Amino acid sequence: MTTHDSVTAPALPDVSALVVGVLGGTGDQGRGLALRLAKAGQQVVIGSRTAERAEAAAAGIGLGVRGADNAECARQSDIVIVAVPWDGHAATLSALREELAGKIVVDCVNPLGFDKQGAYALKPEEGSAAQQAAALLPDSRVTAAFHHLSAVLLQDESIERIDTDVLVLGEDREATDLVQALAARIPGMRGIFAGRLRNAHQVESLVANLISVNRRYKAHAGIRITDV
Amino acid sequence: MTTHDSVTAPALPDVSALVVGVLGGTGDQGRGLALRLAKAGQQVVIGSRTAERAEAAAAGIGLGVRGADNAECARQSDIVIVAVPWDGHAATLSALREELAGKIVVDCVNPLGFDKQGAYALKPEEGSAAQQAAALLPDSRVTAAFHHLSAVLLQDESIERIDTDVLVLGEDREATDLVQALAARIPGMRGIFAGRLRNAHQVESLVANLISVNRRYKAHAGIRITDV
Repeated sequence: MTTHDSVTAPALPDVSALVVGVLGGTGDQGRGLALRLAKAGQQVVIGSRTAERAEAAAAGIGLGVRGADNAECARQSDIVIVAVPWDGHAATLSALREELAGKIVVDCVNPLGFDKQGAYALKPEEGSAAQQAAALLPDSRVTAAFHHLSAVLLQDESIERIDTDVLVLGEDREATDLVQALAARIPGMRGIFAGRLRNAHQVESLVANLISVNRRYKAHAGIRITDV
Repeated sequence: MTTHDSVTAPALPDVSALVVGVLGGTGDQGRGLALRLAKAGQQVVIGSRTAERAEAAAAGIGLGVRGADNAECARQSDIVIVAVPWDGHAATLSALREELAGKIVVDCVNPLGFDKQGAYALKPEEGSAAQQAAALLPDSRVTAAFHHLSAVLLQDESIERIDTDVLVLGEDREATDLVQALAARIPGMRGIFAGRLRNAHQVESLVANLISVNRRYKAHAGIRITDV
């Protein structure tokens, strides 16, 4: 017997017809996610502050990806991934409260500071970026996921599979199931439910540790959950 | 190309002759670690508040494991794993400052609270349990590791290998190398350097997420770092 014996995962819903928006989709993380989801056959809309920048990023990806300003991106999407810089997180979401009402929001923002010794966790007043999103978007179904993906690997089209797990957090089982299913669309990835939003801070902050791993091992580190 | 292509790990030191103490070695986590390290051929001393309890736990394991009170355990050991409950963490370490001077201390304590919704992270005033240990033990070489191991798996002797990674944190490269090497003594485990102690809080707190994973998937979850 080894610890590899795995339990049967609960069946996840079909998300193939859902439109996925990526706010901050012109950044490395957002563009990488947009690319991977579009390659997996998902309809993707990149959002940015200006429609022109979003359209340029979308054209760069191809695969039917569209571009729009953030508000229009939110309106057109069923699931909206928030991949904006932490600096602009609160302002971007506050401005989109109406457009994001009723939507599944997936926060993947990692509040980090950097100095000579590398990265360290910032502690948002609300506890985490995801809890800040939930506070600012009371009419949305806020989840947190996609924190630990290397933007380099996501954007490298010579890499077919990214063997890593996506930790999905949230209060709403139907929403976290959909986000898990979305993660599983990308070859090599699994979406693993990993708790409520009050436990998002450490998931967001763990990126500081992965940055240390990357420095030491010249890697693009991600994580896998064992025994699942 | 896949993300499995792994870099060559730096060579780790030989720790086979070092004596490992386990403070709180009568608890599930400590006893499990003592068992695994002793099975791997390491000399192990279990520490507890009373020598009698420690000796009883040691006798239960066999494999040459010794028992002693915490102070004597610290004195006899080269590397001392701190596996006491968070409640007793500060008091235990404060009392052992002299005995732990010059030793490598490995903090594996996870400060967590529990309520009806499960586990959540506690935030120690010093930032993390490991930083509290470093503050209380200025003459020791404090590291943090062994946070994410399932006590159930550790103690189940029918399981030969535990396929998981041990994140090792600390300021002192020689110390973290030794702790990585110690982790690698246990079949299936690797020790992976994962940053400085200022980034220990999220590593400690991630156990709250693993507890959510365990509930959802009926698992004994651990983690692996990918691309390393």
